[in-house]
Amino acid sequence: MALVNEHFLKLPNNYLFSDIAKKVNSFKVTHPKSSIIRLGIGDVTEPLPKAVIEAMHKAVDEMAHKETFHGYGPEQGYDFLIETIIKNDYTPRGIHLEPSEVFINDGAKSDTGNIGDILRHDNSIGVTDPVYPVYIDSNVMCGRAGVLENGKWSNVVYIPCLKENNFIPQIPDKRIDIIYLCYPNNPTGTVISKGELKKWINYALENDTLIMYDAAYEAYIQDPEIPHSIYEIKGAKKVAIEFRSFSKTAGFTGVRCGYTVVPKELTAGTLSGERIPINRLWNRRQCTKFNGTSYITQRGAEATYSPEGKEQVKDIIHYYMTNARIMREGLQSTGLSVYGGENAPYLWVKTPDGISSWKFFEQMLYEANVVGTPGVGFGPSGEGYIRLTAFGDRANCEEAMKRLKTWLK
Amino acid sequence: MALVNEHFLKLPNNYLFSDIAKKVNSFKVTHPKSSIIRLGIGDVTEPLPKAVIEAMHKAVDEMAHKETFHGYGPEQGYDFLIETIIKNDYTPRGIHLEPSEVFINDGAKSDTGNIGDILRHDNSIGVTDPVYPVYIDSNVMCGRAGVLENGKWSNVVYIPCLKENNFIPQIPDKRIDIIYLCYPNNPTGTVISKGELKKWINYALENDTLIMYDAAYEAYIQDPEIPHSIYEIKGAKKVAIEFRSFSKTAGFTGVRCGYTVVPKELTAGTLSGERIPINRLWNRRQCTKFNGTSYITQRGAEATYSPEGKEQVKDIIHYYMTNARIMREGLQSTGLSVYGGENAPYLWVKTPDGISSWKFFEQMLYEANVVGTPGVGFGPSGEGYIRLTAFGDRANCEEAMKRLKTWLK
Repeated sequence: MALVNEHFLKLPNNYLFSDIAKKVNSFKVTHPKSSIIRLGIGDVTEPLPKAVIEAMHKAVDEMAHKETFHGYGPEQGYDFLIETIIKNDYTPRGIHLEPSEVFINDGAKSDTGNIGDILRHDNSIGVTDPVYPVYIDSNVMCGRAGVLENGKWSNVVYIPCLKENNFIPQIPDKRIDIIYLCYPNNPTGTVISKGELKKWINYALENDTLIMYDAAYEAYIQDPEIPHSIYEIKGAKKVAIEFRSFSKTAGFTGVRCGYTVVPKELTAGTLSGERIPINRLWNRRQCTKFNGTSYITQRGAEATYSPEGKEQVKDIIHYYMTNARIMREGLQSTGLSVYGGENAPYLWVKTPDGISSWKFFEQMLYEANVVGTPGVGFGPSGEGYIRLTAFGDRANCEEAMKRLKTWLK
Repeated sequence: MALVNEHFLKLPNNYLFSDIAKKVNSFKVTHPKSSIIRLGIGDVTEPLPKAVIEAMHKAVDEMAHKETFHGYGPEQGYDFLIETIIKNDYTPRGIHLEPSEVFINDGAKSDTGNIGDILRHDNSIGVTDPVYPVYIDSNVMCGRAGVLENGKWSNVVYIPCLKENNFIPQIPDKRIDIIYLCYPNNPTGTVISKGELKKWINYALENDTLIMYDAAYEAYIQDPEIPHSIYEIKGAKKVAIEFRSFSKTAGFTGVRCGYTVVPKELTAGTLSGERIPINRLWNRRQCTKFNGTSYITQRGAEATYSPEGKEQVKDIIHYYMTNARIMREGLQSTGLSVYGGENAPYLWVKTPDGISSWKFFEQMLYEANVVGTPGVGFGPSGEGYIRLTAFGDRANCEEAMKRLKTWLK
């Protein structure tokens, strides 16, 4: 008899964003005349940069002629894109990478999920809490997270990020095998300083811990002191994998492209104590279970680094970060405590009077017709918070703030 | 200490196509003036159909304007593509599918590899031999294949397909949990009749076996009696997942799109005997570890079903199948025994005088300057065969046959 992977059955059936959709739909049915503003899901709304559009048209045309047609590309991505990434995202920060250390993919979600393939099923896991659900769910699926007990997975260490600790995760006092860090952070919108990140590298070096560093939102960093890459910290290449994405940088959520950096000097162990280069395992995983990213997409991603592309990307980031400022100021003027939104497109709002995340979500939906994401959906330490995103339309952001001001007055 | 998944270390370091590339390169270095014709790798050479080019240009333009921009799409794919697939590929063959039974992906390789995520690590595996290496390697990676002993994996049942049995795999006399079938077959280019396929469905129904049916080459079937989909056989929805691809149909090897059919009535068991719908697990897997296929790509795939698109696809298939005929006739005229190539773009050639696959590969390379793929690279039963593909340029195919005729005269 074919048997299912029973770890899947441990996953709760409800899923944050479908639960939200259900609640929004039932509101719409009972209030057909209300106009809802959605500041919940982290999807972009601005069109692709012109440089990307031009590059993709050109690439489509190449595919129309035998002489310039592209069939299977390298599973790891084309050199033209890898070299452009290294030259623009790493070299200027003093980080030397070889082309074979960069793997192009169809978006960071795939790789942050699939990376677990190359690691033992019984490594222990650590996450900052609240957290992007994929880190946990993908580990649940292979049995690595253990069992769910009182809202927490038994083999996962939750490192709380709360206003009480300025959202700075404390270094654990015990050894953890694999730690997920996401900076700028989804969902809190907070960032990590070089000094704090250095503590994590040291912890990882001392404990032989593997850090999964998700830098999907690095383009939103405004403060020049905040690190964009974990490899800005000495020693990081020995302990960290970095995930990047064009989704939020250049509006690629529907185009699908990102990349993963796996340094050659990064190793993990075998039970017998041998050190194995992670790069070799990931390369083998990708060659077997992935067939490269669309040529057209890769040409589009490359164009984000042209002089025009860079300017256009900067404009998009500026647009969303202006939304973030408007929202931040608007929310603060209502007396709410707001975090994030200064170096990240997410705002993390403390609910007033200790109201629960879901209660505040429903009140905001029914009384102000604004949709957010209940913080508790991202983990136990998200209770009492709500996440708003700055990816919306400017007019909607302004209107939402007006509504919230009237509502909370 | 972070530990690696040690199953990866069981994989041999050599990889068929990189071994071939090395041998071809060393020939080129020592024979710089020779012109090599490559009939080895299964990559297409004809450009994308015009209808696809137009659809992708249109989709790129949509991405350039806020009103028509597409961000995150459904992880399962857009309804416009799913419904077009059902209407064109299944309804005319009397197969009823619901949209939620079809999952769009970035190519069949990803899904045939990733599907193992939802199944227990200790299911037994059966493959026809020779076989597409991804089926085995992806199972090795999660420990399901066992250990390698004398060129075979201990938990894999190899079902030989040889000229002695007309390449018809025999139904095993013992129970196997998961069977991979690929028809039209890669690498042998042979097909399966409805009668033979029915035997497999009956076996699966009797033994509670899950069939992974890879139909990536179904568009090449010329004989109207040969099934295109496993669901043409009654009962198949209870036991089979079907993988399809636009790669070889419409030249999408560099664009990346395929789809997987997971019927709602397909179930597998838990250790305690509960039946679990596979569709629900796969949906959860995709929602967690995949973020949908590029909108532009999906619009391109949709266009292969327009009246113009269908004609253009038919022309491409005809072009390659004419290559196949030329190659088949050419090879036969040299006295070689040739299989496949009538309903598939692959030709499976018996080496003369019992020469080994690699020996014949090298002779053909050095003496006729033609590159094939050694059959033994696809499994033990591939020894003594070589695979040639019909995806090349016409002039190259003709020239290759001329060389082989001169060489083997």
